[in-house]
Amino acid sequence: MQPTPRPAERIRIVLVGTQHPGNIGAAARAMKTMGLSRLALVAPQRFPHADAEAMAAGAGDVLEGAERHDDLAAAVADCRLVLGCTARDRRIALEQLAPREAAARAVEAAAEPVEVALVFGRERTGLENAELQLCHAAVHIPTDPGYSSLNLAAAVQVLAYELRLAMLAEAGAAAAGTARGEPPASHAEMEGFFAQLADTLDAIDFHKGRTPEAAMHKLRRLFLRSRLDAREVRLLRGVLADAQRMARLAGDRE
Amino acid sequence: MQPTPRPAERIRIVLVGTQHPGNIGAAARAMKTMGLSRLALVAPQRFPHADAEAMAAGAGDVLEGAERHDDLAAAVADCRLVLGCTARDRRIALEQLAPREAAARAVEAAAEPVEVALVFGRERTGLENAELQLCHAAVHIPTDPGYSSLNLAAAVQVLAYELRLAMLAEAGAAAAGTARGEPPASHAEMEGFFAQLADTLDAIDFHKGRTPEAAMHKLRRLFLRSRLDAREVRLLRGVLADAQRMARLAGDRE
Repeated sequence: MQPTPRPAERIRIVLVGTQHPGNIGAAARAMKTMGLSRLALVAPQRFPHADAEAMAAGAGDVLEGAERHDDLAAAVADCRLVLGCTARDRRIALEQLAPREAAARAVEAAAEPVEVALVFGRERTGLENAELQLCHAAVHIPTDPGYSSLNLAAAVQVLAYELRLAMLAEAGAAAAGTARGEPPASHAEMEGFFAQLADTLDAIDFHKGRTPEAAMHKLRRLFLRSRLDAREVRLLRGVLADAQRMARLAGDRE
Repeated sequence: MQPTPRPAERIRIVLVGTQHPGNIGAAARAMKTMGLSRLALVAPQRFPHADAEAMAAGAGDVLEGAERHDDLAAAVADCRLVLGCTARDRRIALEQLAPREAAARAVEAAAEPVEVALVFGRERTGLENAELQLCHAAVHIPTDPGYSSLNLAAAVQVLAYELRLAMLAEAGAAAAGTARGEPPASHAEMEGFFAQLADTLDAIDFHKGRTPEAAMHKLRRLFLRSRLDAREVRLLRGVLADAQRMARLAGDRE
């Protein structure tokens, strides 16, 4: 049996038009500390370069293994999920994700498995509009509005850190699932659970006139993150069934 | 626009024995992007220095405002919470915190308010044992065991990022949906939730004569794995409260 590729092997960091080679090296070091090794460079201004080597410290292997491309389209051609790092207030129509959400989505996609790219633009000017149009969502690191000048490698460090946390959570959940010997719940099982949860919230009058979407959105996110197995879904649905039964009994009384 | 979170005024970043002045500048920049401005330097090897200015970019004001001390004890003399960044496997008796836990605790303490310090050691050798003894807990950034060589300013960036998320959550900005980063639920909050969950299972007659331990054990494991934040605990407890209310109404009928 072939070993299953780790999510890290399906997630690449793409640096577009980097001006300072030192930043490429520092980004490689940031990646490697967090267990990432796939670096793609799109039209770097100066590379290879002694500054890149120096800043990479012990991550020279990441630099040596870096792919080179002439444009972003070529660098992400095989990717089914492309996330572009941007400043907050760009007038773009893309969904904006916090780093933690972006990392969760990237690791989830890598486990499917599909190829995933996190894209970082030029030091001063970021990604061009044509490049952003290749992205499925934008990632915004919540900097101080008064000084949002995050260094390129520092931005890579923050995203790589969140990716590592998400990968560790995924590995922990997978290991727990293996230990339990239960397969993870299927998409259909999860949707069946969410439908019953929504019905139950209605039945016990949880919303009290508020729109149900906000609470259900939070609960979906919570339970999806938990990676329930099929037996846990049955357990939770058993609890919901009894809550629904109580609501019916209470309703009969009125 | 988000207002500057005020806990930042009570949280200082302390760099001990920094060898490379460029790292001091890069740390100042990392801090300022996340709304932190209080920098204390303990016996830096070379400072002030042109490399520090260059790497600080627009954060020269953080460098100019930096306090200077001869030893760590003097730098944290007025602090009621001192957290020291360390590698994982030091033989220290200190409680070890993940960056997210450390940030939550720091922001909570700053809001009390007390003075808080996050301490970063020398590039190669970290903090000495006598310095760690001044710390109330250790913070470990979960690097890859195969390559844990995090740059000093990158470590400051990760902690400053987690501090900003915690400050935004504290300031209520997260409620507007602009950022995530609720602190994880405390041990007491989780136990309060589990107690209410056990009561609810009794109230809706989930067990039906079976012993309650098996189901509660599975539910505890599921929810502990989910790493609920404090707001999610409140949401789930709200659902339980309504299920309990329905059970009471149903009981009144009998």
